[in-house]
Amino acid sequence: MKPETLLYEGKAKQLFLTEDPAIVRVRYKDAATAFNGEKKATLAGKGVLNNRISAFFFQLLREQGIANHFIKEISPIEQWVKKVAIIPLEVVVRNVAAGSLSKRLGLTEGSPLRHPVIELYLKDDALGDPLINEDHISVLEIATVAQLTEMKGTALKVNEVLRNFLAQKNILLVDFKLEFGVDDSGDVMLADEISPDTCRFWDMATGNRMDKDRFRRDLGNVIEAYEEIWNRLGGREDV
Amino acid sequence: MKPETLLYEGKAKQLFLTEDPAIVRVRYKDAATAFNGEKKATLAGKGVLNNRISAFFFQLLREQGIANHFIKEISPIEQWVKKVAIIPLEVVVRNVAAGSLSKRLGLTEGSPLRHPVIELYLKDDALGDPLINEDHISVLEIATVAQLTEMKGTALKVNEVLRNFLAQKNILLVDFKLEFGVDDSGDVMLADEISPDTCRFWDMATGNRMDKDRFRRDLGNVIEAYEEIWNRLGGREDV
Ligand SMILES: Nc1ncnc2c1ncn2[C@@H]1O[C@H](COP(=O)(O)OP(=O)(O)O)[C@@H](O)[C@H]1O
Ligand SMILES: Nc1ncnc2c1ncn2[C@@H]1O[C@H](COP(=O)(O)OP(=O)(O)O)[C@@H](O)[C@H]1O
Ligand SMILES: [Mg+2]
Ligand SMILES: [Mg+2]
Repeated sequence: MKPETLLYEGKAKQLFLTEDPAIVRVRYKDAATAFNGEKKATLAGKGVLNNRISAFFFQLLREQGIANHFIKEISPIEQWVKKVAIIPLEVVVRNVAAGSLSKRLGLTEGSPLRHPVIELYLKDDALGDPLINEDHISVLEIATVAQLTEMKGTALKVNEVLRNFLAQKNILLVDFKLEFGVDDSGDVMLADEISPDTCRFWDMATGNRMDKDRFRRDLGNVIEAYEEIWNRLGGREDV
Repeated sequence: MKPETLLYEGKAKQLFLTEDPAIVRVRYKDAATAFNGEKKATLAGKGVLNNRISAFFFQLLREQGIANHFIKEISPIEQWVKKVAIIPLEVVVRNVAAGSLSKRLGLTEGSPLRHPVIELYLKDDALGDPLINEDHISVLEIATVAQLTEMKGTALKVNEVLRNFLAQKNILLVDFKLEFGVDDSGDVMLADEISPDTCRFWDMATGNRMDKDRFRRDLGNVIEAYEEIWNRLGGREDV
């Protein structure tokens, strides 16, 4: 086996070079972090589950015509993805008030929103990932107006596809965070991950949380909740 | 003299009913507050200066075709204005990075911005006047898309008029905050105040601050700076 070349190590994933310069290998770690890295833990099994769940959603979205970086799973904790230049924005879509939106607007957690709300955060740990607006993005030259329009349009499409799909599994899609990148041809493409680390999933009947809020808020049974998501998606054990 | 009927007392101004239900009397107080009311002081003479400066700017803007609530000065610390239903938004326009924008985006204070940046804050002391975006405004039903478009367009016009005018007085218009209201006919109209309390004014030659940052940051000579602004505007002593 050849030695691995680590391209980047983030809080939840490692990125390795592959023989093909257009492809990177993503390894999902068992590390859990919250509050901009202040809270940390190792949750055995999280890497496997997020790799599987993320792969599942990316395939579902591709079937629905939403281009994304996913190529294929290559091990229980690894997938190949198209290498892109990540646009340093976190694109958040919300259907129900929770987390920072509840705090910002003074809305009770669980209040449905009249329509999906998109928020743009600057992906910058040192600045604490601040909420920003399109004028900020423009003066910082982070993305063009056309790229932003495309990202927001895709984010709303992702919301429709995932929300409808998850409703059939009795899962309420409260909110989620997306990242986009630009590929070699200059096209904007959905990237990063879609998992219980990056979405809020509530049981439709009980309101039970099945996502990273269990870790953030010390609710216990974090891995059990991620497993429940994987099972409801119709998860296979053998990948 | 008839007894006064106080309609509302804010941090910087009192609003009184008048005999005409369409008109309110604004009295500018000597009170200075910062950091959402945490820091407080009385600055003798601030009321007079802000009443005069605000009246001056509103008249300048009206001459340039920008409708606003100002009717006339009726005493050194009071003016009549059209009564409006204030839209609970603070519309901020910035030409140069300073204050919370510098913190949010990690920009050195004084960095010029490539183009004016508009920010919308929810006017809500209990929530700490958070930055919000147009989706937030829409789900909260705070303003219609048409009202927002008009407010942002007017804010940029105000910026052009004030920036050019102030440049002739050797004053750099770094940023400012506007409030808008809806009058009886449903028209959106510029309201509240335009003063060193609500703008950042820097001396073009020295970079000296001539605004509320002197109070916020304990720079001293607050009133002297407000007086300097009034003098540069060509202020008369006898109003
Ligand atoms: N297809 C891709 N090409 C290049 N980088 C990617 C791709 N998908 C995701 N990334 C980046 O991989 C990094 C590792 O992920 P993660 O551990 O979540 O990092 P972080 O702690 O920065 O959020 C992130 O910076 C993410 O933006
Ligand atoms: N033309 C107007 N009609 C009605 N209310 C107004 C008008 N202009 C300003 N106001 C409101 O008057 C109040 C008093 O001003 P201020 O002391 O600055 O209050 P605050 O502490 O809420 O900022 C503010 O709530 C402001 O929005
Ligand atoms: Mg990440
Ligand atoms: Mg005020």
